Amino acid sequence: MRLRNKPWAVKLVNEHPESVLQNPDPEKKIDWAARFGNDNTIEIEVGSGKGHFITTLAENNPDKNYVALELQTTAAGIILRTKLEKGLDNLQILRGDAADINCFFPENSTNVIYLNFSDPWPKTRHEKRRLTYKSFLAKYQQVLTKDGHIEFKTDNSGLFAYSVQSMNNFGMHFDFVSVDLHHEKPEIVEKNIETEYEHKFAAKGNPIYALHADFEA
Amino acid sequence: MRLRNKPWAVKLVNEHPESVLQNPDPEKKIDWAARFGNDNTIEIEVGSGKGHFITTLAENNPDKNYVALELQTTAAGIILRTKLEKGLDNLQILRGDAADINCFFPENSTNVIYLNFSDPWPKTRHEKRRLTYKSFLAKYQQVLTKDGHIEFKTDNSGLFAYSVQSMNNFGMHFDFVSVDLHHEKPEIVEKNIETEYEHKFAAKGNPIYALHADFEA
Repeated sequence: MRLRNKPWAVKLVNEHPESVLQNPDPEKKIDWAARFGNDNTIEIEVGSGKGHFITTLAENNPDKNYVALELQTTAAGIILRTKLEKGLDNLQILRGDAADINCFFPENSTNVIYLNFSDPWPKTRHEKRRLTYKSFLAKYQQVLTKDGHIEFKTDNSGLFAYSVQSMNNFGMHFDFVSVDLHHEKPEIVEKNIETEYEHKFAAKGNPIYALHADFEA
Repeated sequence: MRLRNKPWAVKLVNEHPESVLQNPDPEKKIDWAARFGNDNTIEIEVGSGKGHFITTLAENNPDKNYVALELQTTAAGIILRTKLEKGLDNLQILRGDAADINCFFPENSTNVIYLNFSDPWPKTRHEKRRLTYKSFLAKYQQVLTKDGHIEFKTDNSGLFAYSVQSMNNFGMHFDFVSVDLHHEKPEIVEKNIETEYEHKFAAKGNPIYALHADFEA
């Protein structure tokens, strides 16, 4: 979702190069172990928005490293503010394009890629921009470890149906499927971390769709 | 869905052995070409209920043969009445258990298997009874031709999610996915033939889920 531009966010982002990598050269390798100060496993959220999801994950799991991949500076600034307030040393923010994910991260480097409420691009001529289009899946496959997986959530029925078919046709193996995530068994609902958008949308009574899948041969 | 017992239906079914095969011996081969009087391609609906779906298909496609697989005598009688009224020579009714489908039909004999609004069996201990459990999928695979496929519809979110995962994990290839079939593009909605149950359920505004899949290697 497009956020209104906030000057304080731009300033904050520019003041914290140790926490926010801005539009790095896709040709150059990023030394994630150096940025995190350790080589714990990495999980990535593609399109973090205001960051409630990824900052909550980072707070709950200090032994894992998290990267919020987000293009908008204002969103990056909001995530950064939370990171600084909560002292989340295991969270890095990457301002960059999801299409370069395989340049930003080495092969077999990432355990989980989260795709939360990404743009549905409903027009057929924009299919290639959907984050579950096969060219994106091929990049996720490169970046993920052998036992890594994707966790995908959306409120958009068209994007969900498209993604189920796209991931199936790519040969991916489904670990979890729900067409009404917020009304699954309590143990599933309790584990779910909502994004800001998800919280608003589900409050209207609309269903949330979810799919977890891996590239197991 | 369980129908109230109708004595006229039992009588009608018993009077028409040329149209209704009742609980045939799974050990004996059924000569479908003899029953239909031709060797046109066969499509099967598993659990036809009152038969609006399969009789409409049979009426619209006189060059194909259809089998309504249905356990209940009353349902079989209602389907039979429509068949006789409309003179549908390309429709046969089979009173038998879906678990014997691979006994009732030869290998590579069937082009399409329709699974419409089957019992969701929501309890985990009843998983094996769901018509998309892997043991059923293995039987459908035997019966279907190499370019045959399954068309599955349900209003039950749990059964849909289960079936998506089960068919994916079985290695099936998805040709069509919808989580809101009645609000797809007009060309898809117009082609959809509703079952009696679907018509009632969708009128309440609830979504209909659909999945078409094949066993392509």
